[in-house]
Amino acid sequence: MPRYKLTIEYDGCSFHGWQSQPDANTVQDALQAAFLKLTGESLCVIGSGRTDAGVHALGQVAHVDLPKAYPTNQITGAINYFLKDRGVVLLNAEEVDFDFHARFSAKARQYTYKIMNRPMPLTLDEGRYWHIKKELDLNLMREAASHLVGHHDFNTFRSIRCQATLTMRTVDFLTLEKIDNVILIKIQSKAFLHNQVRIIVGTLKLVGEGKWTVQDVKEALQAKDRIRGGPTAPPEGLYFTKVFY
Amino acid sequence: MPRYKLTIEYDGCSFHGWQSQPDANTVQDALQAAFLKLTGESLCVIGSGRTDAGVHALGQVAHVDLPKAYPTNQITGAINYFLKDRGVVLLNAEEVDFDFHARFSAKARQYTYKIMNRPMPLTLDEGRYWHIKKELDLNLMREAASHLVGHHDFNTFRSIRCQATLTMRTVDFLTLEKIDNVILIKIQSKAFLHNQVRIIVGTLKLVGEGKWTVQDVKEALQAKDRIRGGPTAPPEGLYFTKVFY
Repeated sequence: MPRYKLTIEYDGCSFHGWQSQPDANTVQDALQAAFLKLTGESLCVIGSGRTDAGVHALGQVAHVDLPKAYPTNQITGAINYFLKDRGVVLLNAEEVDFDFHARFSAKARQYTYKIMNRPMPLTLDEGRYWHIKKELDLNLMREAASHLVGHHDFNTFRSIRCQATLTMRTVDFLTLEKIDNVILIKIQSKAFLHNQVRIIVGTLKLVGEGKWTVQDVKEALQAKDRIRGGPTAPPEGLYFTKVFY
Repeated sequence: MPRYKLTIEYDGCSFHGWQSQPDANTVQDALQAAFLKLTGESLCVIGSGRTDAGVHALGQVAHVDLPKAYPTNQITGAINYFLKDRGVVLLNAEEVDFDFHARFSAKARQYTYKIMNRPMPLTLDEGRYWHIKKELDLNLMREAASHLVGHHDFNTFRSIRCQATLTMRTVDFLTLEKIDNVILIKIQSKAFLHNQVRIIVGTLKLVGEGKWTVQDVKEALQAKDRIRGGPTAPPEGLYFTKVFY
């Protein structure tokens, strides 16, 4: 029963999120169906973390235990054949030790949130960015972001559906850069609460628009209450980019 | 009858090319239908050049003569409202003198061709790149490209359906760069022959694969015969990026 680490890319628009669900088209179900075809066995593909419907991944990581050893290029070749045109591909497969666990061994997770900041509608980039027409003040957003870096109680910045019992998290970095009309927000943490990145982005957007001050963000964090946070940014701008082990 | 210069972005996958056609969904027809709604008049929107079905534009330029003057933000607002969800937007409108002609006044046109050079299939980038699995030798492609820069007879590098009577063209530059798995090929000329960029890219790809030598490309150019050129690269990797006046 060798264990394989899988690196996975997917278009969030093609799926109802990562997590397996009855009668829903999820990434985990698509992968498990493909591994069933390869091995003849119903297997569990364990992801490093869930992503919501519409959220993209450039480097989701998962692991799976196979009934026998396969050459890794045979795994990627077969799985990608079975997943053809589904909006998900296996970028890499490698055999790992049994002490590797996609979720529990993760040391850091990185996300990028992409905003297209221009007045005109999107064409080629539809479904790939959060489209914000009004020009955002990046410097104010950066100042607000700086208060969210570090070890804090992020209760304000999690979905009311979040099931985590502990809400302390450490944000290693939270950077904003602008290239032409595109704002890239990059964030890293060992682990995130449900919707944490999207609520942080939705809150920073209020600052960029001038609706909230930097002080409002500090107070929102201190309130430890979801009702005091900004709205949840839409899923289509969010990319799960990397997991470190 | 003021004249307006229009800057246009579109997703090539949404249209049967630029040029107006009976019973086909073209960019020119979509724009003309929108201007009919705005002005009540059937008008001709004259592009700087045609693009084929599947070819994208980030900065196509056109001009149109309107029956009366409009504030330019009213033009973009109304036209983009009428074009909503069609895969084309008007990025900018500005009033210009009557000696401005989108096609005849153009001093240089720029295209970018995008290749995704990786073994795995595409998900998020489907329809946005030419997907080439085998790793291409960029240095050999650059050397071959250098022989296509300058003033040459490009008869080898044009569609057999090309209607131009003169086949001499001057390529100002033809550069290749690689960022991660993406190869960007940038080319500029005052004017291009039909399919010139795509046939150049299709030919350079043969060099990158090791199927053709740099010498083969030199001889293909000298032959002035389409049959001696490489295949036409697919449209989905091609972006019409800029026109200089």
